[in-house]
Amino acid sequence: MRRAIELAARGIGSTHPNPVVGCVITAADGNPAGEGFHAVAGGPHAEVEALRMAGPRARGGTAYVTLEPCNHTGRTGPCADALIEAGVARVVYAVPDPNRQASGGGDKLRSKNIQVEQGLLQAEAEAGNHIWLHSVRTGRPFVTWKFATTLDGRSAAPDRTSKWITGPAARADVHRHRAECDAIAVGTQTVLSDDPELTVRDSDDVPAPRQPLRVVVGDREIPATAKVRNDRAETLLLPTHDPAEVLRQLDDRQIRHLWLEGGPTLAAAFLRAGLVDQIVAYVAPAVLGSGFAAIGDLGAESIDHLRRFNLLDVTRLGDDVRLTLSPLGGK
Amino acid sequence: MRRAIELAARGIGSTHPNPVVGCVITAADGNPAGEGFHAVAGGPHAEVEALRMAGPRARGGTAYVTLEPCNHTGRTGPCADALIEAGVARVVYAVPDPNRQASGGGDKLRSKNIQVEQGLLQAEAEAGNHIWLHSVRTGRPFVTWKFATTLDGRSAAPDRTSKWITGPAARADVHRHRAECDAIAVGTQTVLSDDPELTVRDSDDVPAPRQPLRVVVGDREIPATAKVRNDRAETLLLPTHDPAEVLRQLDDRQIRHLWLEGGPTLAAAFLRAGLVDQIVAYVAPAVLGSGFAAIGDLGAESIDHLRRFNLLDVTRLGDDVRLTLSPLGGK
Repeated sequence: MRRAIELAARGIGSTHPNPVVGCVITAADGNPAGEGFHAVAGGPHAEVEALRMAGPRARGGTAYVTLEPCNHTGRTGPCADALIEAGVARVVYAVPDPNRQASGGGDKLRSKNIQVEQGLLQAEAEAGNHIWLHSVRTGRPFVTWKFATTLDGRSAAPDRTSKWITGPAARADVHRHRAECDAIAVGTQTVLSDDPELTVRDSDDVPAPRQPLRVVVGDREIPATAKVRNDRAETLLLPTHDPAEVLRQLDDRQIRHLWLEGGPTLAAAFLRAGLVDQIVAYVAPAVLGSGFAAIGDLGAESIDHLRRFNLLDVTRLGDDVRLTLSPLGGK
Repeated sequence: MRRAIELAARGIGSTHPNPVVGCVITAADGNPAGEGFHAVAGGPHAEVEALRMAGPRARGGTAYVTLEPCNHTGRTGPCADALIEAGVARVVYAVPDPNRQASGGGDKLRSKNIQVEQGLLQAEAEAGNHIWLHSVRTGRPFVTWKFATTLDGRSAAPDRTSKWITGPAARADVHRHRAECDAIAVGTQTVLSDDPELTVRDSDDVPAPRQPLRVVVGDREIPATAKVRNDRAETLLLPTHDPAEVLRQLDDRQIRHLWLEGGPTLAAAFLRAGLVDQIVAYVAPAVLGSGFAAIGDLGAESIDHLRRFNLLDVTRLGDDVRLTLSPLGGK
């Protein structure tokens, strides 16, 4: 199963809107016979890949899968059927499929007298798929708020200039993160001030088989010459101020992971609505003393209103520091 | 010499206004004969301690000292004379004494036909004494600006409450730092808003043989009931707004290391004057969205005015993160 989890991780950033899945098949004698992972939506599922490699050696063997085999005909047939057809004797999966459309694979296998076990290394397998699981379980995208700031909490100078607060290593890291999400959102003010392109680029080691959807939230007019209107990626204009409405529309498009790049007003709206699932902050060892704050008003009047988060990770990136936070009480 | 540098470090925080010094004496046959360090101003110097331990075995031996032996009669006699009297054949010291009053020890030893060498492990020895060396070389205290902040750069909520932005581990670290400096400065606004005591406490592992001088800068009236007026430490009121004048007055009192605790106006004045030698920032994984910035206006209008620093260290302290910075171009 550990190997299956490793295999699953190879699909990160390319399986949208599907989960990452890994599968290892052992023959009846217990020796490895086949392995596979889900690489891209519409392509073969992990089980099918592994069965193909195992061939006749799958008969009487065991399939280890990170996620409950699907019982759903989408762009590919149900994996449960493929496992039954191949004659495997036992299926061990880590995480039950929370997707109502696709679940029931375990029951179907049992009905064919295949021995089914669930739960092996479940926590590890969940961690590898936590964005997708969050999205399917809650019915809305997982939201990561990203911002770059000086040590004194400024994201732009008084004249709105902000290039560059952080250095090349932090900026390359942002592009690695963008490449792993499904949509990048900013407010109209950010488009008007910074004219960002919101594409994945700048880094040789970022494989970008697709560009995330660009989302512009708010009702100010975006000029035709704005970079977000170029043809390097798809762009969705959402003339609303309601974060829940933004997430509803993105869920309709099967967006699993939204990367929220600001500005302060949009970020504050998501925070106030309790719709931020992760914060990635790039802190530069620099001070401005004036300018625009990274985050807008949250209604805090006294220190009792301080919004605290779990500190998940601290990493130095070149001259800057990246802090990764999650809501208290969250994972 | 490495042992002498280790010994010197034992005096950190207690030798004020003197440097830390360590000394190792080997006998004529090269075997260790004695060692010592300077523990407290007015107490024996490192060389005298080491000579006492070595006794007659110092004759014909070598003294390894982290700092040039003094040639000055203060509360104790000149160490150069003590070494001559003990009959050592050779003196190796790491760092020349920059103190005009006390230097000349090397020359005096040479005049008595003692072999003198300088420079062994000088960088390491300088690092161990960098605050004192900075102070003597520049004629003003080394200034560390300390602040605690949220991720969005707030040091207090709109109602000026700030207890507590950071957690117990970060606060204990502040007390360890306070214990190693000679004076703690705040502005009058901070005294009026927060009523801090500015003493070393809160931690069992902080040995506090003395309390640093408390310094209140600014011309607002401090009430007689303010905690800084209690008898737990000495307090100096400096009714000025000029950082250079503050440092002049502290240098007159032989303050080597000033720990600047804010608030934003005082910190901004020191930064603008180029009189901050180190920044220690405690960053909490929390956001406020409103309230008072950690640093006042520095006159920055565009991102070109960003003041950058070297990131010397990043350390997680409980739920918080401590960043240590030094000016660019500095050490």
